[in-house]
Amino acid sequence: MRTTGREFFTARRVAEALSEYRPEHRSAIDRVPLETAAGRVPAAAILARAPLPGFDRSTVDGYAVRASDTFGASEAIPAYLQLSGAVQTGATADVSVTADRAVAVATGAMLPPGADAVVMVEHTQEAMPGTIEVVRPVAPGDGIVRADEDAGPGARLAPAGRPLRAQDVAILAAAGVTEVDVHAAPRVAIIATGDEIRSPDTTELAPGQVRDALSVSIGALAREAGGDPYPSGIVPDDREALERVLEMAVRDSDVVVICAGSSVGARDETGAAVSSLSRSEIWCHGLAIKPGKPTLLAFAGGIPIIGLPGNPRSALVVFRLIGMPVVRRVGGWTVEPRLGTVRARLARNLPSAAGRLDVVQVRLSGDEAEPVFGPSALLSVLTGADGYVIVPEPATGLPAGEDVDVFPYA
Amino acid sequence: MRTTGREFFTARRVAEALSEYRPEHRSAIDRVPLETAAGRVPAAAILARAPLPGFDRSTVDGYAVRASDTFGASEAIPAYLQLSGAVQTGATADVSVTADRAVAVATGAMLPPGADAVVMVEHTQEAMPGTIEVVRPVAPGDGIVRADEDAGPGARLAPAGRPLRAQDVAILAAAGVTEVDVHAAPRVAIIATGDEIRSPDTTELAPGQVRDALSVSIGALAREAGGDPYPSGIVPDDREALERVLEMAVRDSDVVVICAGSSVGARDETGAAVSSLSRSEIWCHGLAIKPGKPTLLAFAGGIPIIGLPGNPRSALVVFRLIGMPVVRRVGGWTVEPRLGTVRARLARNLPSAAGRLDVVQVRLSGDEAEPVFGPSALLSVLTGADGYVIVPEPATGLPAGEDVDVFPYA
Repeated sequence: MRTTGREFFTARRVAEALSEYRPEHRSAIDRVPLETAAGRVPAAAILARAPLPGFDRSTVDGYAVRASDTFGASEAIPAYLQLSGAVQTGATADVSVTADRAVAVATGAMLPPGADAVVMVEHTQEAMPGTIEVVRPVAPGDGIVRADEDAGPGARLAPAGRPLRAQDVAILAAAGVTEVDVHAAPRVAIIATGDEIRSPDTTELAPGQVRDALSVSIGALAREAGGDPYPSGIVPDDREALERVLEMAVRDSDVVVICAGSSVGARDETGAAVSSLSRSEIWCHGLAIKPGKPTLLAFAGGIPIIGLPGNPRSALVVFRLIGMPVVRRVGGWTVEPRLGTVRARLARNLPSAAGRLDVVQVRLSGDEAEPVFGPSALLSVLTGADGYVIVPEPATGLPAGEDVDVFPYA
Repeated sequence: MRTTGREFFTARRVAEALSEYRPEHRSAIDRVPLETAAGRVPAAAILARAPLPGFDRSTVDGYAVRASDTFGASEAIPAYLQLSGAVQTGATADVSVTADRAVAVATGAMLPPGADAVVMVEHTQEAMPGTIEVVRPVAPGDGIVRADEDAGPGARLAPAGRPLRAQDVAILAAAGVTEVDVHAAPRVAIIATGDEIRSPDTTELAPGQVRDALSVSIGALAREAGGDPYPSGIVPDDREALERVLEMAVRDSDVVVICAGSSVGARDETGAAVSSLSRSEIWCHGLAIKPGKPTLLAFAGGIPIIGLPGNPRSALVVFRLIGMPVVRRVGGWTVEPRLGTVRARLARNLPSAAGRLDVVQVRLSGDEAEPVFGPSALLSVLTGADGYVIVPEPATGLPAGEDVDVFPYA
């Protein structure tokens, strides 16, 4: 096959991009109230200041006892204990447990002094007023949690670098942490380019024009990755205009995304405009991925610049695989989320070239994954899909009937 | 084993709750700008008003031709075509393709009249100024997308009842849809109860008191399910006070959650308070789930009321499995999301009782899932977990070494 000299890029592998195209830049630190902290990334580990729950508590409804007083108890030979009083949940235990005595406690109530276990009410019976029968022995520690069993003083309640989950927020509330230092949502500038591109609110398009599908949808993915999308307008295919917008974006943002025109000329312009920025470095121009080969990854002054392919479908695929991890990293994530998959049986053969990672859209029906094919210019290939399958770089395809892991769209 | 008469509930199965405890109530409809529509649930299917992309377009850089003029072309015997001009991306095609002629087109450019295919530039060579050699034949339709190939007029761009994903937002932008009617985020009232419960901002707790860990963390899960959490304060264990707060919550909210005190008395109070509401119906008081058995599911005037167990860990587990689907349904979801899982090998035996669904927290390391055990009073069991495994109702446990599906925490 003849070439024209326009295949200007040497593709790098997706795995390389994920492991080596890693900006050092981090977004600023914000202090936020706990109410809005779920999903935010702590800038430092959060430690307990005091033991949690703070006092020995009953975990069941029952009777606080000295465990040794119940040893050998059974239905046939119950242990008889005198009832010395009760501790209400939320109240101070002002009665002690001594030998052969029991104190009634509700779930969550403070353990009375002298007790080392709680017998569940189901394993007791009131023999006569003021006396209970215990029909099953308990061991020390049964039916209670210790004062520091959830966390000792100084214990780590939540790590840095991983978004707070509901349970993390719960333990922080329990520990009285009501404000958290988190990474600010990285500001993600999104620049649309192309002479043919018009704003989505354009009612009537002239022939040859299309609306900007990417600013808002790449913005949605940026937000999903914890970013704060900032659409920076539509720039015509004009290198100087693009340079001006890029300079401003690099100065004001944590991540810059260019939705490149997809013509050869436009691709050239993007690379040239990025190269003209001060302290810029083009990490790659071309990724071994389908769709999405004409991807540009660069830095300028430490700020990552992601040049997406012009086809909306390719752009969305590349931003999901490469852009979202960049936004997360800049936003303080030190681990990547574990993406769950749905196991399904491939409904037909997937051809692929070795050395290239293929992202194949699939429709799920029952336990079958039906590939959705079509030109990368078509958005309907993506909107018709329930998830995607990755054909890894070494593979030359996947046969019909093979079990595959489908990454579901939420 | 003797019982005390306090085992007042008959447990229903989780699967029954998911399929039968289904509120008919839906949140109101909001019109939102497309910029904030990702993740929102359309109230009706969104249809295309005009064909998309709206004109026949080139999907490659190359030459628009009549495919028949390239039949038989090869490296050895190229087809020679006269160059009649060019169509720029974004411009109207004002030159036609006639027999043995070609028009240069960039990716995304309008197809000139008369052409039915585009030859990739890589499969051509400029033989002399104004003449190109085509070295590979194209079939009609190659290198182009038709005017209505993404969507014909009236075609469904996005369905009702499923949250808009990034690609849905992209196709809506491309179609010029800039506002969408979506379900309002269901207002989720969250009522904390218990004499021992204090606000998280309480600096010093008296002995026996604990901070409210649930209002903010259940709120985080409600928001994750698309809801708008509304913490409704902490109510002491007092039936009348709870009734008053409940009445107000049912009037003002789409979903009501009660974080019940966990003592027997408190559980009784919750059930009684809910029963006292007008047009109330208790669907179940007790679920065959561990942790989380003392769960109450009810309605009042069509509004779902979810009474969570008092232990924060149990409450979070139950709300994730039962509460989040309720919030989604009230928020207009007509399908449940496909939750992806991570396949891992169980590091030790998981005992379980048949007839009960067990939710077991696990830590993931490599491809091993290590169960995290501990009393349901401990939040640290949840904060130390990377995900959870479900031991289904019929199973009596899972053996170490078994492959299990782990639902990862994001």
